[in-house]
Amino acid sequence: MIIDCHGHYTTEPDQLHDFRKRQIAALHDPTQRPSPALLRISDDELRASVEGAQLKFQRERGTDLTIFSPRAMGMAHHIGDAGVSLVWSQICNELIHRICSLYPNNFIGVCQLPQSPGVDPKNCIGELERCVKEFGFIGCNLNPDPSGGHWSGPPMSDRWWYPLYEKMVELDVPAMIHVSGSCNPNFHTTGAHYLNGDTTAFMQFLTSNLFNDFPTLKFIIPHGGGAVPYHWGRYRGLAQDMKLPPLEELLLQNVFFDTCVYHLPGIKLLTEVIPVENILFASEMVGAVRSIDPRTGHYYDDTKRYIDKVTTLSEHDRRKIFEDNARKVYGRLNARLERSKETVRA
Amino acid sequence: MIIDCHGHYTTEPDQLHDFRKRQIAALHDPTQRPSPALLRISDDELRASVEGAQLKFQRERGTDLTIFSPRAMGMAHHIGDAGVSLVWSQICNELIHRICSLYPNNFIGVCQLPQSPGVDPKNCIGELERCVKEFGFIGCNLNPDPSGGHWSGPPMSDRWWYPLYEKMVELDVPAMIHVSGSCNPNFHTTGAHYLNGDTTAFMQFLTSNLFNDFPTLKFIIPHGGGAVPYHWGRYRGLAQDMKLPPLEELLLQNVFFDTCVYHLPGIKLLTEVIPVENILFASEMVGAVRSIDPRTGHYYDDTKRYIDKVTTLSEHDRRKIFEDNARKVYGRLNARLERSKETVRA
Repeated sequence: MIIDCHGHYTTEPDQLHDFRKRQIAALHDPTQRPSPALLRISDDELRASVEGAQLKFQRERGTDLTIFSPRAMGMAHHIGDAGVSLVWSQICNELIHRICSLYPNNFIGVCQLPQSPGVDPKNCIGELERCVKEFGFIGCNLNPDPSGGHWSGPPMSDRWWYPLYEKMVELDVPAMIHVSGSCNPNFHTTGAHYLNGDTTAFMQFLTSNLFNDFPTLKFIIPHGGGAVPYHWGRYRGLAQDMKLPPLEELLLQNVFFDTCVYHLPGIKLLTEVIPVENILFASEMVGAVRSIDPRTGHYYDDTKRYIDKVTTLSEHDRRKIFEDNARKVYGRLNARLERSKETVRA
Repeated sequence: MIIDCHGHYTTEPDQLHDFRKRQIAALHDPTQRPSPALLRISDDELRASVEGAQLKFQRERGTDLTIFSPRAMGMAHHIGDAGVSLVWSQICNELIHRICSLYPNNFIGVCQLPQSPGVDPKNCIGELERCVKEFGFIGCNLNPDPSGGHWSGPPMSDRWWYPLYEKMVELDVPAMIHVSGSCNPNFHTTGAHYLNGDTTAFMQFLTSNLFNDFPTLKFIIPHGGGAVPYHWGRYRGLAQDMKLPPLEELLLQNVFFDTCVYHLPGIKLLTEVIPVENILFASEMVGAVRSIDPRTGHYYDDTKRYIDKVTTLSEHDRRKIFEDNARKVYGRLNARLERSKETVRA
């Protein structure tokens, strides 16, 4: 089984975008807020939105299951207040749940959280719990910078985040560290802010006691870990200069990297320097880069091809990257897959 | 000849640190500002500060010349106002000049600029011109975020920066894009902010018309280009999605990467994906990482070793990386080296 741990719902029907536009237009006049109950998207529309995209790519590329979450850029936690963020998160998560219910063999959900700049992350617990307990989601996307590129909040190692971490541990769900859109003109969203968020979070973990306090807390750093594997020597050296234990010991029980790196040399480096146990297959499709690479004739984000081509990986290694590691990092995944099988059998 | 294009004066005598402390202590009481004229550091003290460090490493590692600038973290443009930044930059640049004069075969200067958050970069032109014309410096370090991790200014593609670029072109000097210390608790300086600055600047260039407006403007992106080479497929794809020309055409006449990547797999990737013409040897020593890698028995930042080990590079390629590219990117370097030779002969 090939599990893609990083897929976003980036092919949403227009009604969702219209709702969001009206929600944003009403920021300064709450009486104009659109009613979520009036957002009508049929099952057929949901099916149509993924059939020609995510499902088609799964079939073409030979992957089986996508761990699926709302569009990352769309989370835009910096827009409006915590109330706006909650309504928007609920709607987005409910759509993910409906798609996962329509295609239980193809998608399993991960939720967006109703974060808001300056608002205590405790406010995310209710939605996380609902998504996990009622919808069967197996993780969440956690934005280390809800300000959208101003980085005005505390780092992820701060106790500010601890109540959310406690709930994640209790529910046995990991978080993918994922910033949303940038509203800072310095940071291009997918070309700078995403990768910076990944790099930044890793270094926050490296310099913190977080995993002493939460030994079973797990994070996936997407986009191949930002700059981290490329600079693995730098990080090993920085940890050593700080008299910290080796990185394997310090954080590789808790921190994992996905394979959203869109060329073979990058994937080769990732698999060469990061222990194979810490790498989870992902493609981010349909995501940041949508073209076909003229040098290969294949989509840039068809990352399975690169992994298949790394000759230094054994079949056993590949199986870990494609499946086994995801089953370990997402603690609820196995039970969820069993349930899906039963549903399909029944 | 082996030219290290990225070395900082990180072994400054205590008097310099004392001066800076007093300067900072006087921020709210200008009458207490220390007089630069009373900063006394002898030639012997300057010699002692580099003999056991940068010069020793040059000898041990077999490098010849370091393109040398003040400590990057020390620039701290976010401290005080433009006046404070100017005094501090002048002092730091003068020390670099003295060291370059003491060791004309070992060091050539690059200056710190008196940037200050929110202050028009025109204010840097005077100090740049002084350093180039009076001291024989061949470049400058340009901080894309003088706010120190708040990223509150305009991107480097903004016309705000153009007067400085005009002067750089006129003087035929490149800039190394280099942030300084981070005062944002989210960003560890050497483990996140430095690399984020590199990645951010690259994407600002990619999405701009800067090199149409300044076809001969040149930037070196240090630390191996931050996350960029590792994500070269992502950048190629993003440019393609935006209907931009290939990256080689779009910006590789103007943007260069150094080799401050502290392990062999990283250097292998860099030399595999980036054209050899765009790679300049550098080690950042004495810099961010100071330990010996227990896996190799050598300093992490002894990057010459990694380049020597990349079997896919020809001797001709290696010569470009070690010497020829620096001579091309730093337009004043050749003339400067000729003059040093004459001085030594005379």
